[in-house]
Amino acid sequence: MQIIDYRSDTLTHPTDAMRRAAAEAEVGDDVFDEDPTVHRLQDMAAETTGKEAALFVPSGTMGNLVSLLTHCQRGDEIILGRRSHIFINEVGGPSALGGIHPHPVANRDDGTLDMQEVEAAIRKEDVHYPPTRLICLENTHNYCGGYPLTAEYMQEVRALADRHGLKVHLDGARLFNAAVALGVKASDLTRDADSVMFSLSKGLSAPVGSLICGPSDWIGRARKWRKMVGGGMRQAGVIAAAGLEALVHHPERLNEDHENAKKLALGLHETPGIRIDCDRVHTNILFFQLQHPDMGSEALLNYLDDRGVRILHMGAGWFRAVTHRHISGDMVAATLKIIREALK
Amino acid sequence: MQIIDYRSDTLTHPTDAMRRAAAEAEVGDDVFDEDPTVHRLQDMAAETTGKEAALFVPSGTMGNLVSLLTHCQRGDEIILGRRSHIFINEVGGPSALGGIHPHPVANRDDGTLDMQEVEAAIRKEDVHYPPTRLICLENTHNYCGGYPLTAEYMQEVRALADRHGLKVHLDGARLFNAAVALGVKASDLTRDADSVMFSLSKGLSAPVGSLICGPSDWIGRARKWRKMVGGGMRQAGVIAAAGLEALVHHPERLNEDHENAKKLALGLHETPGIRIDCDRVHTNILFFQLQHPDMGSEALLNYLDDRGVRILHMGAGWFRAVTHRHISGDMVAATLKIIREALK
Amino acid sequence: MQIIDYRSDTLTHPTDAMRRAAAEAEVGDDVFDEDPTVHRLQDMAAETTGKEAALFVPSGTMGNLVSLLTHCQRGDEIILGRRSHIFINEVGGPSALGGIHPHPVANRDDGTLDMQEVEAAIRKEDVHYPPTRLICLENTHNYCGGYPLTAEYMQEVRALADRHGLKVHLDGARLFNAAVALGVKASDLTRDADSVMFSLSKGLSAPVGSLICGPSDWIGRARKWRKMVGGGMRQAGVIAAAGLEALVHHPERLNEDHENAKKLALGLHETPGIRIDCDRVHTNILFFQLQHPDMGSEALLNYLDDRGVRILHMGAGWFRAVTHRHISGDMVAATLKIIREALK
Amino acid sequence: MQIIDYRSDTLTHPTDAMRRAAAEAEVGDDVFDEDPTVHRLQDMAAETTGKEAALFVPSGTMGNLVSLLTHCQRGDEIILGRRSHIFINEVGGPSALGGIHPHPVANRDDGTLDMQEVEAAIRKEDVHYPPTRLICLENTHNYCGGYPLTAEYMQEVRALADRHGLKVHLDGARLFNAAVALGVKASDLTRDADSVMFSLSKGLSAPVGSLICGPSDWIGRARKWRKMVGGGMRQAGVIAAAGLEALVHHPERLNEDHENAKKLALGLHETPGIRIDCDRVHTNILFFQLQHPDMGSEALLNYLDDRGVRILHMGAGWFRAVTHRHISGDMVAATLKIIREALK
Repeated sequence: MQIIDYRSDTLTHPTDAMRRAAAEAEVGDDVFDEDPTVHRLQDMAAETTGKEAALFVPSGTMGNLVSLLTHCQRGDEIILGRRSHIFINEVGGPSALGGIHPHPVANRDDGTLDMQEVEAAIRKEDVHYPPTRLICLENTHNYCGGYPLTAEYMQEVRALADRHGLKVHLDGARLFNAAVALGVKASDLTRDADSVMFSLSKGLSAPVGSLICGPSDWIGRARKWRKMVGGGMRQAGVIAAAGLEALVHHPERLNEDHENAKKLALGLHETPGIRIDCDRVHTNILFFQLQHPDMGSEALLNYLDDRGVRILHMGAGWFRAVTHRHISGDMVAATLKIIREALK
Repeated sequence: MQIIDYRSDTLTHPTDAMRRAAAEAEVGDDVFDEDPTVHRLQDMAAETTGKEAALFVPSGTMGNLVSLLTHCQRGDEIILGRRSHIFINEVGGPSALGGIHPHPVANRDDGTLDMQEVEAAIRKEDVHYPPTRLICLENTHNYCGGYPLTAEYMQEVRALADRHGLKVHLDGARLFNAAVALGVKASDLTRDADSVMFSLSKGLSAPVGSLICGPSDWIGRARKWRKMVGGGMRQAGVIAAAGLEALVHHPERLNEDHENAKKLALGLHETPGIRIDCDRVHTNILFFQLQHPDMGSEALLNYLDDRGVRILHMGAGWFRAVTHRHISGDMVAATLKIIREALK
Repeated sequence: MQIIDYRSDTLTHPTDAMRRAAAEAEVGDDVFDEDPTVHRLQDMAAETTGKEAALFVPSGTMGNLVSLLTHCQRGDEIILGRRSHIFINEVGGPSALGGIHPHPVANRDDGTLDMQEVEAAIRKEDVHYPPTRLICLENTHNYCGGYPLTAEYMQEVRALADRHGLKVHLDGARLFNAAVALGVKASDLTRDADSVMFSLSKGLSAPVGSLICGPSDWIGRARKWRKMVGGGMRQAGVIAAAGLEALVHHPERLNEDHENAKKLALGLHETPGIRIDCDRVHTNILFFQLQHPDMGSEALLNYLDDRGVRILHMGAGWFRAVTHRHISGDMVAATLKIIREALK
Repeated sequence: MQIIDYRSDTLTHPTDAMRRAAAEAEVGDDVFDEDPTVHRLQDMAAETTGKEAALFVPSGTMGNLVSLLTHCQRGDEIILGRRSHIFINEVGGPSALGGIHPHPVANRDDGTLDMQEVEAAIRKEDVHYPPTRLICLENTHNYCGGYPLTAEYMQEVRALADRHGLKVHLDGARLFNAAVALGVKASDLTRDADSVMFSLSKGLSAPVGSLICGPSDWIGRARKWRKMVGGGMRQAGVIAAAGLEALVHHPERLNEDHENAKKLALGLHETPGIRIDCDRVHTNILFFQLQHPDMGSEALLNYLDDRGVRILHMGAGWFRAVTHRHISGDMVAATLKIIREALK
């Protein structure tokens, strides 16, 4: 049975070229800062995001955690989206490990935060308040349907942050999906952030790894926090080589995933029992809601699973599907057929 | 010039009886658990709230902090109101010091949390999620205009908490204001909470101190967290004696504060340039908004200050006034006269 | 039965003058920084220690904790004595709550740290190491038999700290015992520390409270940490008034406690079955060891307790006795008699 | 010029077989627990150490950190060696991130802790004390000259731990060096520990990765802490495959490293100007001290570096050399020749 797995783009396997790159990587001990492949990857990441320097980390969660630990000290407050990955899905690490106080603000459906709400959340100096230090954004915004944030929005946030002396961190786990969808360069979307994290292991298909990018001295300090959380790896060039291959050759193909997502969305839209807003599908993530008189969420999940289609149920009848390198146009067509059969 | 200070009921000075009690207190070293007056106060607090045991702490902030440290370990999540004192006004201590992840849910205008929103915020077991441990409520709810939460509401929360294996902590800084306003016993409002903090130093007029109440073993563990944060005091009987006087004799007179608040509210309601919803004034706290063509918030603050009336500006034209033992009915009348003069 | 309680000088009850001062204290809300008595106490504390500013806290443990939280951020390292009160007796709070890494160095028997060992413990900059931030000293040194540290030693530490860009914090819980024993001013012993904590509630007999003293901006930042841990009290003037009385009138009488300790030590020295080094008794604390063929530690404790003499057993046959305002010369004589009887 | 690099065995490059294994690895998304190669590695690690389960992590530092976070909660105390890697070289992470209080005890020169000192460090229940939770050992002990701890010693520690209800964690970064040197199975050395961490990336030559092993439920809880610190990797099978190759084939060859270390030690012993105790060289780590009238440490470092020999200076004339797969017997001979030339 053919498996069509929409659970996440993190499921993508490395390409043959990546495997070859891993096998042939020139390596050194990266804790001694002597791995040439890691250096090449970090340099390319810094250049791509328009930052002075970059640091390789084994996961996006670590990239965000190390960024926040570097920006904030014990007792600082961050403003972030209520539906952001950092707030919802990173185990509360910034609070648990770093003593950082999250101040969530509602995400609008396009993933942005309302500038007035952000401004209202900024603390004035008072003995009762934790000092606001950082605004965190996410692009594309996973739980807002993969919506891409524009460069113009980033400028607005930058202006607000500057007025209040705050820093801006961008969780760009799917930064290249945003850039491709908006038809801009990645650096256009990171220019107004002080720091940015992006992942190699999602749509870009690398097996392992993310990067954080920012000013040189900030990256210098981040190295120590990375070491502390255990992200200092030895011959990391093995995975960095696969990551380089991903970073060089894979952003261009993300468009294909976006087209497949759109195709899936349009098909679902015409499927009775499914509610979906196609105008909100801009990248490779789509959310839809089951509204069927006879079939519940669990039943649909099982039905699909039995036929090789895997998808995530987010609760209350909502499902998330993510397209990626292992999902072809034909698979989308097959999926639609199976779902229609189910809901017939 | 007569000073009429509405900034907070924490401003209340000890009565002569409290001063006398402090001077004559029988004392011992409370770190050795040998202060008889502290014991008496703790016993009375436990009885009043219907809990097995109680612990004296120097402030409400410490009472809440120690309670949360005792309920939650590093990395646990708490659900609490977005307008709660713990989230807004306690310096982010539970995160900063305790590694506790706050999950704020909107407060309705009556201070309650919507049970469905609370339920939606509870985490299922998943490697990405911090475990939900505790629901925090506040009664009366300071930033919701001193609204009292009812015993019926507490029962609902208890039922929800039990279904999910959660604990409930009540920030009852102004618990007795709630009890008096609702015409019930304090213990009716604390029955369904696992732990409760209440303050002696607010409307009850004691100079210093709050208590946390809960099961004996929980209080036993709380003693160590209190020691760690530095709340172990020596001959604490000196202040506990004043607190006992407050706890025995002062709840009954809170009604007077509530009447004065109501009177002030009604008067403000009839004052052009002021917006206030009198139906929301149930205890000793009231919020009103300045909406005047010629006078701004700063100007009003200064005008009042020059005439001995002190009040807190909360931002965006909103003011908070709190009535207490040093605010008489005549002072309320005088205040209204001054405000009307200002806005004429 | 007369009770002679050597367990700690924290057991001292307030004097009548202190009780009177508490009863008559001029007060305000100290969270609003409006308590005139607290201001007077803080000013006097700053002057006494030769620092710019001071802050009142409810305990010595909180004073040390707030000092360390203000000096150090998450992940900083402190060098402190292995037998120091902060390392042994403050529940590990600086680590548990503040993420501060303790680096203990052996205390010599006179309470000092060897300068070479301190220097060896200072970290160079390296991705593997927490940054060294602070050296903590204790004067008098409780677990080194109440030994006082000299101004000359403090100078040495200062010089070392300056060479490495470190700060120095002095846990001066019994600072005045040291000053009196050495015949110097308290400020001579604090000059070379960046911050100092001293207690009112030990030999000085105040019921509650300690102070931290340091530069104005440092105290300004410490106010927020004090608020976070719950040390912001309301009409704290009630206890500050008693503390002022203690600070003004009680240092002078500590000599009496030291004489009684010496007298007790000399008497114990002549008691068969007791081992004590009288040359090490300089202030109000003394340690002695039971070495008796027939009587064990528990038996001695019980024997003494039955006769009204209370003392702390520290383990392995070692006992600690502390003299204070409630121990007279006659009581020392009575104690010696009882012990000799026991060991006869 | 031939480079002979003794700085660390972490410098070892992957073998061709490891590179091939990486290229051909069967993979899945390990955050979804679906990577078959990671599963195989974890199963083998569990079997090798005689534990129920294992978890793959990107570094030894993370392995120790996650182990400590899983064993200890905020405010717990651990007893560990003053010269241990966890205390000295892991950036103070357990305190900084986990609120764990370290209680260092002197390491004897063979890496062990004296059982009486450990017992004296265990806290009794008292409001002033953090609760002792865990004893940490290290085998082989890096800063004690790579000394291996015996199974008999582990038994002693176990017995002590059991008497006090404590857990035992073994930092076995170089566990296989210990097993080979002692001629026992790895599981003989881990039997008496509750949890163990060992590294693939040191003498075993894998590019990246370590494992933690322990009871199934403990590993289950550790997964969440690993996710929180950012150690959840996606197609981790790429590096796990290289690690499997290392774990299967490389322990056997560690003997060669030990022989080379011994050979180097004996040669240095006969070199004037070098002080070394050859009896202490049991595995692949050796420490020696320069004691030469004309040549200082920096000069020697530079002299060697110019001739391709790299070594770590630990301070005060002490050097550490580590032998590994890239150091042959001929290289040791060449090194000795160069050093003798230098010190001639």
